[in-house]
Amino acid sequence: MQELTIVKIGGNVVDSPQELEQFLSDFAAMPGYKLLVHGGGKIASSIGQKLGIEPNLVDGRRITDAATLELVTMVYGGLVNKSIVAKLQALGSNAIGLTGADANCIKAVKRPVKEIDYGFVGDVTGTSSINTTTLSALFQADLVPVLAPLTHDGQGSLLNTNADTVASVLATAFAGIYTVRLLYCFEKKGVLLDPADDASVVRAMNPGKYAAMKETGQVSKGMLPKLDNAFSALHSGVYQVVIGQARDVRAMAANGEEGTLLSLH
Amino acid sequence: MQELTIVKIGGNVVDSPQELEQFLSDFAAMPGYKLLVHGGGKIASSIGQKLGIEPNLVDGRRITDAATLELVTMVYGGLVNKSIVAKLQALGSNAIGLTGADANCIKAVKRPVKEIDYGFVGDVTGTSSINTTTLSALFQADLVPVLAPLTHDGQGSLLNTNADTVASVLATAFAGIYTVRLLYCFEKKGVLLDPADDASVVRAMNPGKYAAMKETGQVSKGMLPKLDNAFSALHSGVYQVVIGQARDVRAMAANGEEGTLLSLH
Repeated sequence: MQELTIVKIGGNVVDSPQELEQFLSDFAAMPGYKLLVHGGGKIASSIGQKLGIEPNLVDGRRITDAATLELVTMVYGGLVNKSIVAKLQALGSNAIGLTGADANCIKAVKRPVKEIDYGFVGDVTGTSSINTTTLSALFQADLVPVLAPLTHDGQGSLLNTNADTVASVLATAFAGIYTVRLLYCFEKKGVLLDPADDASVVRAMNPGKYAAMKETGQVSKGMLPKLDNAFSALHSGVYQVVIGQARDVRAMAANGEEGTLLSLH
Repeated sequence: MQELTIVKIGGNVVDSPQELEQFLSDFAAMPGYKLLVHGGGKIASSIGQKLGIEPNLVDGRRITDAATLELVTMVYGGLVNKSIVAKLQALGSNAIGLTGADANCIKAVKRPVKEIDYGFVGDVTGTSSINTTTLSALFQADLVPVLAPLTHDGQGSLLNTNADTVASVLATAFAGIYTVRLLYCFEKKGVLLDPADDASVVRAMNPGKYAAMKETGQVSKGMLPKLDNAFSALHSGVYQVVIGQARDVRAMAANGEEGTLLSLH
């Protein structure tokens, strides 16, 4: 089976021109089918502030009101996405920037209102929401999709969607079609036993080890959603998930030579 | 030969939700291969003002400095482009929003500095700058490219490019491959003999009539670049150019039943 590498980078990379440049140069050099999902970064908040769009928080949860949706459409779908695409093109990688609306790549459902109305937030309900046919056609045409964390409802509205989720649903949707590696880049070198010590990276984890570490409290709370997501992707047929730092992306792709390699075994 | 319809809409449509909705619904219903080029609209200026990005004018010419490039990347490449794409998707049209950087669709050269440094403005130097192969592959996959007026230099920088020019260079590049109709939508119902009278539309023009009208001063100065552009496209093999109003787009596409039909004969 053809291999597909899906890389997710977050705001810490997007916000740092040097880190972004280094990462994009490494990413461009990676062989085979690949896809990049990027988050937003602090630039959205700083532009929002200038535009008078204050973060809308209800009970500590971030709400995507109409003004915020316009903001993230501009910043994630425009500024961040197109800057990455132009840079990848200069590095010889035939990037194409997309939101979930483009070519109907990712459809989502506006999150139902329960206690909180999250506004224009999209939940991707399953792998059938991913247009694997069109994305595969792009891979076959040697294109490299660069996805902003935006989806659409099919009724004319864009929706704000968590980039980690976009990456894991994409990985899961392609699991039956390609051998999929999912690389999550974040601030740390991997899952750390001691959050203050970069040398304490857990090199490998399987569900048993994860369960044990959860029980003994060795995994920090902030990591739980990321790891739950990752193991769920593995259970759905994703070949490998590696969590680590953007600067190590090529080693992460090499069967987890850097970062924390998650697998079922 | 397969037919291709290229439609260009300007700020007057982009800025009016009602006009945009009507136009997109007509555009979605048009048969065959098609491509939409959109301009910016006043929204860029109003967002720019809020962000403290003042229009930078040198000798009356608009300069695209670094801040302005970021602004148009956000607004044209993000907000306007993605909103149109999401709306077309809802209308059953499989739109894919692109800048010239995406899939290396349109390469340009940063305008050389002579008397004025225009900043990050891209000149499309010829039809070889258009990636007809990739765009054709999109048509064949039943996708409808929606192009923002942004190009790239292949060295990592996006460039601001006039939407009329983008449309006419695209039309010219595809002239040998498809039977190309180029529809320019603007404020008026067509080329008017009397700018104040919508009923004075010149129904058809050829190069002889254009020359005569120029000599007698019957063509307003503002129309000259548009018409020169259009006739140059026709001379390069574009089948028809029609100039008119967005609300008439379907009739314009029907051999110029509305608007001014330009042809060589």
